[in-house]
Amino acid sequence: MNASQESESARKLLPELFQLLRPHLSALDAFLEEQIASFEPEIREQVNYCIDTSGKRIRPSLIFFSGWKNEEFVDPNLVKLAGIVEIIHLATLVHDDIMDEADMRRKQDTVAKKYGNTTAVLLGDALFSHAVYLSTQFPTNEVCEQVAVAMRNVCSGEIMQTMQRGDPDITLEGYQRVINLKTAELFRVSCSLGAALAGEPTDFCEAAGKFGMHLGMAYQIYDDLTDFFGIQQTIGKTLGTDLATGKATLPLILMRDRLSGTEKEDLRETLCGNREPNVEYWLNKMATMGIFMEVRKAIFDEIRQARSKIEPYQNLASQSLLLTISDLIWNQVETLKSDQASN
Amino acid sequence: MNASQESESARKLLPELFQLLRPHLSALDAFLEEQIASFEPEIREQVNYCIDTSGKRIRPSLIFFSGWKNEEFVDPNLVKLAGIVEIIHLATLVHDDIMDEADMRRKQDTVAKKYGNTTAVLLGDALFSHAVYLSTQFPTNEVCEQVAVAMRNVCSGEIMQTMQRGDPDITLEGYQRVINLKTAELFRVSCSLGAALAGEPTDFCEAAGKFGMHLGMAYQIYDDLTDFFGIQQTIGKTLGTDLATGKATLPLILMRDRLSGTEKEDLRETLCGNREPNVEYWLNKMATMGIFMEVRKAIFDEIRQARSKIEPYQNLASQSLLLTISDLIWNQVETLKSDQASN
Repeated sequence: MNASQESESARKLLPELFQLLRPHLSALDAFLEEQIASFEPEIREQVNYCIDTSGKRIRPSLIFFSGWKNEEFVDPNLVKLAGIVEIIHLATLVHDDIMDEADMRRKQDTVAKKYGNTTAVLLGDALFSHAVYLSTQFPTNEVCEQVAVAMRNVCSGEIMQTMQRGDPDITLEGYQRVINLKTAELFRVSCSLGAALAGEPTDFCEAAGKFGMHLGMAYQIYDDLTDFFGIQQTIGKTLGTDLATGKATLPLILMRDRLSGTEKEDLRETLCGNREPNVEYWLNKMATMGIFMEVRKAIFDEIRQARSKIEPYQNLASQSLLLTISDLIWNQVETLKSDQASN
Repeated sequence: MNASQESESARKLLPELFQLLRPHLSALDAFLEEQIASFEPEIREQVNYCIDTSGKRIRPSLIFFSGWKNEEFVDPNLVKLAGIVEIIHLATLVHDDIMDEADMRRKQDTVAKKYGNTTAVLLGDALFSHAVYLSTQFPTNEVCEQVAVAMRNVCSGEIMQTMQRGDPDITLEGYQRVINLKTAELFRVSCSLGAALAGEPTDFCEAAGKFGMHLGMAYQIYDDLTDFFGIQQTIGKTLGTDLATGKATLPLILMRDRLSGTEKEDLRETLCGNREPNVEYWLNKMATMGIFMEVRKAIFDEIRQARSKIEPYQNLASQSLLLTISDLIWNQVETLKSDQASN
């Protein structure tokens, strides 16, 4: 594959993909709606507000595709797993928004803004607990065990990220370790458990898990890239927030390592919070240094690795569908690139 | 039984009880220590700080006694369950201290004070996740399922309590519902699962669960009572905090319902936060109205109900040990009463 071929195919495949997933995603929406009734009546309004159905549903899509049989068959076990993973993801967002003191998410007030931090902490906890409860509703402990490990890893990654904030000397390895735990882990579990619940052979489940892991890395690097190269209106947040809050993501790490002398020191001091962040200056600097293309290459490498893991499984319907999801993510990077060019 | 007999027997039994539990509680401490290594190296220091071993260990004691065989036999399954329940309890404390903006707990800085709110939210989450992981390490889903339901109920109770804050018209039933969820639930699960893991018959597991539930109610009412009638140095917090923060607990509800006219309105306005709380005035009022004895009666009723649930099981060693724990709680109430008298 080469980059432009992939991007082209993803553009073509997009509507078809969502057509395929439509019955599965509808079943997921219905499942999530049903969960609200499991909470105490007094808190259902708040839970309903958290269970937002406007997300990109990337983790559920990975689950459905990893255990794909055919278009007609909506496997209730996969729907349940997708519900569990989505609820965990939503719970982490509820807690993230408290920590980031964010007011808006997906064009509405964050849970913390609407109900206060106290309720937001507890609602996140209640969502976590409910996701765990749902994962006990499988015949074996496997789902619950993997979900619990993934949850703990996500939290560990977030704690490390919090500890790294304001540290100007984060290494590439330190960054990769954090995003592996906080993002790639849930992608990995989505793919491996999706395949396992559908009864796929163990070797494919493992391969799908590795695919998910690398795809998750790619996805997080892409997400971090949009903080510097996104279109403000599209991503719905101010560019350069990571720089302003001392969070050294890949674009900043790469820029820092290529700078020298006073400029390097300036950037370090900005990351430490010792200097008022001159976001515009650094955005321009990044553009002139070609950081976009370097980060794009890192994403490409992760996607390439992801794809290689499932390459041998051409006989499985899952394989081409998972490859298509990787196309879609790559496509988003390429769209960002054309946006840069036309700016 | 009558109150003074019980109190006397509990005073006698106290050292013997801890002697009995010593090997079990040591095994629990060792188990909790071991868990630290399961977390990512970068966050072990923080986890270690959370896993404080100075607590009263009331839930673990209930677990060990519910599944009691004999002094020599320390059942590793009960140790694991005690570890799980204690970790969940510690996680709720970490999150509680963020919400209450508390600085101190058990004579040291709270996790939120020491590491910041962000890390505290995440550490609580990581502890929850690890407790869930541990509960998947039993052959069946039962432990994990019950633990998840209990966790969700604890959070629901806490959310309701947050929603009720500042509401001067909380009913007795509303109060009971909250403490049932936020406290009694984990007591219930401790007793019923402790018995179940030890292979006790189903009817005793259920009875032990009901015992735990009523004991948890008693314990929370006692805890709420100490906010008004405790000895400041002993409980380590300022008296009347619940009044000052608009949290209507049983002593306040009972006083409110017995007041009339301006005084009732004054108390309501104080609970709403519309009036500066005159804590001393209301503490005196409570004393003259005999609220202590009324709350004491409510605790007594719960303990009596708790005891009645396990009454038929005189053939089980668990029975007398659980009864002794209820003696201990009652003993604490009586100590509070003599402190009042000698004041």
